[in-house]
Amino acid sequence: MIPAEATEAIRTAGRRMDARGWVPATAGNISLRLADGRIAITRSGFHKGFIPEDGVMTVDLDGHPEHSNVRPSAETGLHCGIYRRFASAGAALHGHSVPATVLSRQAGDAVMLAGYELLKAFPGLPTHDAAIRLPVLDNDQDIERLQARVTKIWDAMPSAPPGYLIRGHGVYVWADDMPGALLRLEALEFMLACELEARRSR
Amino acid sequence: MIPAEATEAIRTAGRRMDARGWVPATAGNISLRLADGRIAITRSGFHKGFIPEDGVMTVDLDGHPEHSNVRPSAETGLHCGIYRRFASAGAALHGHSVPATVLSRQAGDAVMLAGYELLKAFPGLPTHDAAIRLPVLDNDQDIERLQARVTKIWDAMPSAPPGYLIRGHGVYVWADDMPGALLRLEALEFMLACELEARRSR
Amino acid sequence: MIPAEATEAIRTAGRRMDARGWVPATAGNISLRLADGRIAITRSGFHKGFIPEDGVMTVDLDGHPEHSNVRPSAETGLHCGIYRRFASAGAALHGHSVPATVLSRQAGDAVMLAGYELLKAFPGLPTHDAAIRLPVLDNDQDIERLQARVTKIWDAMPSAPPGYLIRGHGVYVWADDMPGALLRLEALEFMLACELEARRSR
Amino acid sequence: MIPAEATEAIRTAGRRMDARGWVPATAGNISLRLADGRIAITRSGFHKGFIPEDGVMTVDLDGHPEHSNVRPSAETGLHCGIYRRFASAGAALHGHSVPATVLSRQAGDAVMLAGYELLKAFPGLPTHDAAIRLPVLDNDQDIERLQARVTKIWDAMPSAPPGYLIRGHGVYVWADDMPGALLRLEALEFMLACELEARRSR
Repeated sequence: MIPAEATEAIRTAGRRMDARGWVPATAGNISLRLADGRIAITRSGFHKGFIPEDGVMTVDLDGHPEHSNVRPSAETGLHCGIYRRFASAGAALHGHSVPATVLSRQAGDAVMLAGYELLKAFPGLPTHDAAIRLPVLDNDQDIERLQARVTKIWDAMPSAPPGYLIRGHGVYVWADDMPGALLRLEALEFMLACELEARRSR
Repeated sequence: MIPAEATEAIRTAGRRMDARGWVPATAGNISLRLADGRIAITRSGFHKGFIPEDGVMTVDLDGHPEHSNVRPSAETGLHCGIYRRFASAGAALHGHSVPATVLSRQAGDAVMLAGYELLKAFPGLPTHDAAIRLPVLDNDQDIERLQARVTKIWDAMPSAPPGYLIRGHGVYVWADDMPGALLRLEALEFMLACELEARRSR
Repeated sequence: MIPAEATEAIRTAGRRMDARGWVPATAGNISLRLADGRIAITRSGFHKGFIPEDGVMTVDLDGHPEHSNVRPSAETGLHCGIYRRFASAGAALHGHSVPATVLSRQAGDAVMLAGYELLKAFPGLPTHDAAIRLPVLDNDQDIERLQARVTKIWDAMPSAPPGYLIRGHGVYVWADDMPGALLRLEALEFMLACELEARRSR
Repeated sequence: MIPAEATEAIRTAGRRMDARGWVPATAGNISLRLADGRIAITRSGFHKGFIPEDGVMTVDLDGHPEHSNVRPSAETGLHCGIYRRFASAGAALHGHSVPATVLSRQAGDAVMLAGYELLKAFPGLPTHDAAIRLPVLDNDQDIERLQARVTKIWDAMPSAPPGYLIRGHGVYVWADDMPGALLRLEALEFMLACELEARRSR
């Protein structure tokens, strides 16, 4: 059984993300870590703005479904990679916005964000003078392989920010809980939108 | 008589499309294939975001209205062309967004979409590495003539994607049912929006 | 007394225009011609997305308020100029969008719109092959003087379209009734948005 | 105790600003001057689109909280600086939009706005022919120091407009009351959006 508040938190997050245009078609996914350690995550194939009451399922920390007849989101492995790595991570969001998609296709292996007040949404960055270096990874349908590359980046960057971009595929962001993850995603999407605007006008 | 669920599915699709800005003024149209083979389609002249209860009518596979005193959407012939050609097509949507309109005016005879995760919304494209070549046709008020050119393209491209653009006039997209068509339209409009953004910033 | 349906039609139009971003702050105004020939128009100083029940007033065809203690919209003279000139005009809308404002500042004395399917929203243009030449006038706080220049344009262009732009100030559009005016405004704003997008990307 | 209408005015303003995308994540803040001279202001750390019933607090004109266990918005000092300087100021809004953020990063020490009808939202500018020079200040986490620089600008510009930009951090706007402040913010954000668009297209 999934606690009703967990299902509602995920469904509400989906509606919030859809209102901003971050979950087009069946893109995006949403998860949170339950008190007993299981991961609640959106099932595969639904529009995340209209998640049905039975549209949330549970997996273990290795991404194995608790009930074998239900298919989790395609990128479950990436969510679980976050929860295995960061003990404090309580919620993770994968959004798929136009700025994230376009910027990730233009970027090399990172997007630099500097001089934004909203950088304060990221831990260890109490001032706007800091910057974050958001890793950008090439897309890959082999999620295990993709997660392995994410892990390598985390190994190489001890102070990696709680987010990364997948080329042509959107952002992953996480925080201690769902409200925090939503705030962090909104801050990141805002800064990406500013970056995209800035590249068009000089 | 049109089944009430069919009318509601079409009216709801209209509201969804209007919320995204895809049916300005009286542009756009929406259809689905009923169980008995008739085609339910939006009547002519209404704003598709505010389709009244009697704003849906039926035509046969050749586009002839079941009741001669009601006028179907101007592009009914294009919807029927889809249903005649593709036995599995259950719903078709014509949207008219700013990106579709602007890109179609700039394009030659096709728009290429490659490297987008959302290409997975199109059949036969299980990975992001594929690409789709979306045909672009010049607009034409003679719908029979326009449909004939669409048919020629389908004859020449056996693996043509379930969609095409009409220059300055928007997109046509179809799928097995209305939910599928809405998801496919949303995925396509998202990718077109990314393409438009990408052309502005380098 | 103003018929309740007239007040509601104007208040609803305001909400629709506000939802699209066409009436920022106290910009924009909305009017319609009552059966007895009086003009119902928005009062001055209100946000048109939130017109109160007493936010609509009546003036005669020369713009004189029926009740002298109420102040009509600043541009009442432009609305009345439309009703005096065009016997069939039943509703007029002044919107103030970003595309209209930016394009009007870049334009000379006209904006050409060609090749858009939505041109069909304008009378005498049954095909997309036609074009409309939308006059652009310099702004002027002297409304009588501004209307005189509009009248000169109508005298010189017998087939002038039912709309014009005021530089840095937005569009004026009219039609036989309020639904028609809203459709025409939406079609025009859509085409202006496309023009703006087209100028940014080649 | 905070009068219920004051709390509601602030919460409503937050929802309005959020609907326009001006308060992403926990950015932005909202205040008004109560009849007894206290300042009601949003508490720190909440998303301003979803201010809870206890999300508003009171401070004195020097920014000291009335109740020491509650933390006011980080930029309280800037709001109080406005109320101390301008006896007629009744409400102040800090918004954080994409245009404001991007333009402020590109600007020198001011943004000039000229030729917009909406300049009439600013006092002493009854015509569109006027212009306003909106000061742009570098961001600073030391709010006292930042306010001191704002005060210097006010000392040097007796006819300074009721607003300024903080680089990468958004706009501050004020007026006699909350409705006036919201109108003024909307007018300013509209003109900034036009400026941003204009820089992209020629």
